[in-house]
Amino acid sequence: MPHLSFADRLKRAWADTRSLLCVGLDPLMNRMPLAFARSSQGVFEFNREIIAATAPYACAFKPQIAHYSALEAEDQLKRTIDWIREHYPGHLVILDAKRGDIESTARFYAVEAFERYEAHAVTLNPYLGISSLKPFLDYPDRGCFVLCRTSNADSAEFQLQGDPPLYLQIASRMAGWRGKEKSLGLVAGATWPEDLGRIRQQAPNLPILVPGIGTQQGDLVATLEHGLNIEGNGLIINVTRSLIYSSTASDFCERVNAKAAELSGRINRIRDSIRSQKKTGGS
Amino acid sequence: MPHLSFADRLKRAWADTRSLLCVGLDPLMNRMPLAFARSSQGVFEFNREIIAATAPYACAFKPQIAHYSALEAEDQLKRTIDWIREHYPGHLVILDAKRGDIESTARFYAVEAFERYEAHAVTLNPYLGISSLKPFLDYPDRGCFVLCRTSNADSAEFQLQGDPPLYLQIASRMAGWRGKEKSLGLVAGATWPEDLGRIRQQAPNLPILVPGIGTQQGDLVATLEHGLNIEGNGLIINVTRSLIYSSTASDFCERVNAKAAELSGRINRIRDSIRSQKKTGGS
Repeated sequence: MPHLSFADRLKRAWADTRSLLCVGLDPLMNRMPLAFARSSQGVFEFNREIIAATAPYACAFKPQIAHYSALEAEDQLKRTIDWIREHYPGHLVILDAKRGDIESTARFYAVEAFERYEAHAVTLNPYLGISSLKPFLDYPDRGCFVLCRTSNADSAEFQLQGDPPLYLQIASRMAGWRGKEKSLGLVAGATWPEDLGRIRQQAPNLPILVPGIGTQQGDLVATLEHGLNIEGNGLIINVTRSLIYSSTASDFCERVNAKAAELSGRINRIRDSIRSQKKTGGS
Repeated sequence: MPHLSFADRLKRAWADTRSLLCVGLDPLMNRMPLAFARSSQGVFEFNREIIAATAPYACAFKPQIAHYSALEAEDQLKRTIDWIREHYPGHLVILDAKRGDIESTARFYAVEAFERYEAHAVTLNPYLGISSLKPFLDYPDRGCFVLCRTSNADSAEFQLQGDPPLYLQIASRMAGWRGKEKSLGLVAGATWPEDLGRIRQQAPNLPILVPGIGTQQGDLVATLEHGLNIEGNGLIINVTRSLIYSSTASDFCERVNAKAAELSGRINRIRDSIRSQKKTGGS
């Protein structure tokens, strides 16, 4: 599928997997099950097990790049993404890198994400402005998730400046970017579900990557109520630490598999219930 | 000097080199002199020549990380920084990475910049908030240059939101961060010298890294007039492409050397003139 747009590929992944769940792949040496070597090779093997255990219940994987660069494990990040592309071709890989620089430099970050690692999508920081995003949008089959309202507790200090607040200006700017509708997405934390709702109003058609429902204790029901689009999808709900470090014992694959099944099932039950409420004229 | 603060080390570099100039080390395969192999090894050899040619006239070097990661040249970035630390121990290395993520992830970016690459300082994107900067400030002898007002033409769109505008809120927040005075700095482009002056007013004592006087055509005189601190320094003026790609011929070392000398000399003449104007009571 070389020329399928990112948006179309994502819609297909949502439909084929019947899941909105995204699994973060952030290797932490001190939390990996004891069976894996504390090495670069161990990181890949851990990821491969997590991927196998969660793929039936996930539409996407999200490796966070700093976890690899801190370990000098660029090779294992590449191997992990290659592995997903080869063995799970319907799943998406979102490289969480939050890059942002002037246009001439952003071109090199785009090469890193899309040519070196061959991610389907990347997360981007918009602080430098629209021109800093453009080099990534030159790849017509890839996706760009632009930070809006991040999940951390103190994200309001800078993201709520301005009127309308900066995060909403960013959302509406991205939603209105002609010709890039099939490449753009947003990032909004599950910890601020009402702001997620405001973002959804500004950007009814963009996919939103939502971190924060696990360790950061975002509200899953409110996230779905505020964030789903009119088709009952539109969200990529990421979980990392609370899922992939469910156990360090030999049963970890079963535990992670069961937890992913439970979580994806819960998401689907909530969205079915929201959909049927809407059909019966509930608010 | 293991426990010298970043601020003290920078002051020493300014004094010892009598220069405010910072040289960007951004390898571009298509612009490197023809004598260098178009390879990872060629990148290091190019950097080594640029460093030798400019060190007498510079206080710092600034490798931009995307230029290395796009080439899979992490090893050459590391070698370049090691080379500077070993052969030019009075000079500073600022890793231009513009990282920004939630605190738990930022810890890994800090490991990347300060432990893996052993940079003296790093550039950071503050969009996620204060907590995203903290892990970098846990390294008491390293510096953090926080993006304020970037040099690109469209930086106003998001950076001027709010009242006072966001970039000034960031400047005053950094200037007021108790106990971190010797670790923090700001980034402000030479393309907006009046805003640089506003930043200097908010942050009289922080060093400011200033890109944009070369290819981006920022105004050097206005930059110094607005940006110098009361001691007549406080600025790290970066030049990259317009300096290091002065020539692709065999005379490139001489050309780069002469250009660095000319630029550093020009900066010093301007600041001497500003200083003497201030002493004689000029505005």
